[in-house]
Amino acid sequence: MSAIDDLNVELSRLPGIGRKTAARLIYHLLKQPKSTVERLAETLKTLAEKVKPCNRCGNMTESDICFLCTDPRRDDHLICVVEESSDIDAIENTGEFRGRYHVLGGKLSPLDGIGPDDLAMEALRERVSATEGSLEVIIATNPSMEGEATATYMSGILKSTGAKVTRIALGLPVGGDLQYADGVTIAQAMAARREMPV
Amino acid sequence: MSAIDDLNVELSRLPGIGRKTAARLIYHLLKQPKSTVERLAETLKTLAEKVKPCNRCGNMTESDICFLCTDPRRDDHLICVVEESSDIDAIENTGEFRGRYHVLGGKLSPLDGIGPDDLAMEALRERVSATEGSLEVIIATNPSMEGEATATYMSGILKSTGAKVTRIALGLPVGGDLQYADGVTIAQAMAARREMPV
Repeated sequence: MSAIDDLNVELSRLPGIGRKTAARLIYHLLKQPKSTVERLAETLKTLAEKVKPCNRCGNMTESDICFLCTDPRRDDHLICVVEESSDIDAIENTGEFRGRYHVLGGKLSPLDGIGPDDLAMEALRERVSATEGSLEVIIATNPSMEGEATATYMSGILKSTGAKVTRIALGLPVGGDLQYADGVTIAQAMAARREMPV
Repeated sequence: MSAIDDLNVELSRLPGIGRKTAARLIYHLLKQPKSTVERLAETLKTLAEKVKPCNRCGNMTESDICFLCTDPRRDDHLICVVEESSDIDAIENTGEFRGRYHVLGGKLSPLDGIGPDDLAMEALRERVSATEGSLEVIIATNPSMEGEATATYMSGILKSTGAKVTRIALGLPVGGDLQYADGVTIAQAMAARREMPV
């Protein structure tokens, strides 16, 4: 196999990249200065070598403890539980949340053989138990069937800690259109209706 | 900047990859074994080090002369001229062409300051002149305004060599639909109509 074919195989393993997109990327890279491609290779290597899960929350970091866990301005008494560390980015981008995080590392999925022991559930329970004072845990797993099951299970595990456990709201997305929303979402939005402020 | 941010910057320089896609790719890579990411980095490095244009036709290769130029079963008296080496892949995938290739390395584009001297036009003229016997040059630049201008200019340059110069046909794509085709394509397809075999 040639260097081009080798790279095509590696690139087309990535999500959303097929053989044709891989070929387009490769021909793009071949037109760039050699240094550009080498820099890309180097940053990939650095990623593989340096980035690993935070020992406390599971977020991806280059330190033992990530910057979200060490930031003294964040609220220790508010923990947001997410499936993946990529979810943290999505929440951080809103700029609205000032608490800590906990990454489960996936969701309960019996069909894929992923049970409670494969996720960082016990670690969360211990972390919550060890925190002094009142604590709120916001479960922000995805609004999918498996994400909901994970939220319910997680809530059961946290019961013994006495922490307040909440779930992110389900409803119509902002800017959405009732006409095009699916029935389940509309039903959720109706059930979770709130009184209008006077 | 962190290793994740560094890689995001490098990846989002690639065509069709924005910050969000880059983030998705990175989180995918972070879930893979370290060796997978390192292999991707290595193949990229090999690409940058080994792959360069063929000395004869300009196709991307790891040798001085590419396999399409050295293959003894190919017809030396038929040369297909393309803009980029990625176009060679597209033509080779049809399995219909058995001649040689010549890569111009782009198209005439006065707005981008790309003139005849920036393309491998003189090299093609010399190559055609040096070939003994009758020769056909098929100009397969893209059917865009710039590709057409390049084809016309190229044809003029080749006139002195006495070679037969042809242009790939323009018309409706196979499986296309008249109703959805653009007017220029339909006009071309009408003008280039051929007599039906009896």
